[in-house]
Amino acid sequence: MREPQQDRSRATRRRLLEACVECLAAMGWSATTVAVVAEHAGVSRGAAQHHFPTREDLITAALEHMFDERIESARAELAAPRVVVTTEMVVSRLVEHFTGTLFKAALQVWTAAAADEALRERVVPLEQKFGRVAHRMAIEALGVTDEDETVHRLVQATLDLARGLGLADVLTDDSARRGEVVKAWAAHLDAVLRARRNVAIM
Amino acid sequence: MREPQQDRSRATRRRLLEACVECLAAMGWSATTVAVVAEHAGVSRGAAQHHFPTREDLITAALEHMFDERIESARAELAAPRVVVTTEMVVSRLVEHFTGTLFKAALQVWTAAAADEALRERVVPLEQKFGRVAHRMAIEALGVTDEDETVHRLVQATLDLARGLGLADVLTDDSARRGEVVKAWAAHLDAVLRARRNVAIM
Repeated sequence: MREPQQDRSRATRRRLLEACVECLAAMGWSATTVAVVAEHAGVSRGAAQHHFPTREDLITAALEHMFDERIESARAELAAPRVVVTTEMVVSRLVEHFTGTLFKAALQVWTAAAADEALRERVVPLEQKFGRVAHRMAIEALGVTDEDETVHRLVQATLDLARGLGLADVLTDDSARRGEVVKAWAAHLDAVLRARRNVAIM
Repeated sequence: MREPQQDRSRATRRRLLEACVECLAAMGWSATTVAVVAEHAGVSRGAAQHHFPTREDLITAALEHMFDERIESARAELAAPRVVVTTEMVVSRLVEHFTGTLFKAALQVWTAAAADEALRERVVPLEQKFGRVAHRMAIEALGVTDEDETVHRLVQATLDLARGLGLADVLTDDSARRGEVVKAWAAHLDAVLRARRNVAIM
């Protein structure tokens, strides 16, 4: 009988994490309390508090869980056999990552942390991990090496661009303009990466 | 006696607008009430409420006032005689614009607006104006024409990059990394703009 109970507990935890990210993105930081998230997840308040004693515990666990899951599925997709990965595909995928619900939830937390010292201490390591992992994934997906300074900086710029495009999408649907910007930047990045690869071969 | 009173009223209004932006950046959206801003500005609550009946009035007026002032001084600087304006100077200046107190204040408001329909209706026109004016300024400062689709998109991408770099600076001091990204991006943008100018001349 122990196994099913563990499964149930895991399922409850997971429902809370998912509901938390949805609440943050839709209702904002102040409205996202443990009680509100529990209600959205269809979980009792007591059970929610058992898993996550404080709002900060719930919110940081939710962001990390969803981020890890996203990275995992992006990796699996890009590693699928017989998929030809173009620079534009990689840039599009990165930008999607910064315009989804997870980014909108994280934005609520980062912004609250800007004016809250204790929260900032908790989320800075998370933000750094997210940045590091996304950078590594971009390097791998583009099939380039980070040792080339120009490549390193342009991949960083691509992630910064993606973050900026994410921010531009928070208040209005920016997808049409964004599509054009992504296309233009991907074409230029592709040309630079090709030229650098040739330099490396020579 | 009318003139000095108008001057005093203008000075009070200005102090409130400046204090409001500082409060938003340092204390966040929830803490920035008319009463708190009045105290920071050294203005009585009654006088503050006379100028700005609601918090939304104060905050949108503050963002717009500071933005207009910033654009004005950037324009004056870039138009100064005997200043050779390089692409890197323009990119740096745009990025500075997105890493200052005004950006941090605006981020608090945009993020609150993401979860507040009434506030969103008030700030979307502001956001659109800011984007339009910054784009026009960038085009002018770079000495390029917007009719070239590639140039248009890369200038947009530069502004999106600046926004992303601004967001990366909210929780930690990102200035060292940012300086390198700006240099790499500016060099790349400069090469593209030079090539496009030559095409236009031919």
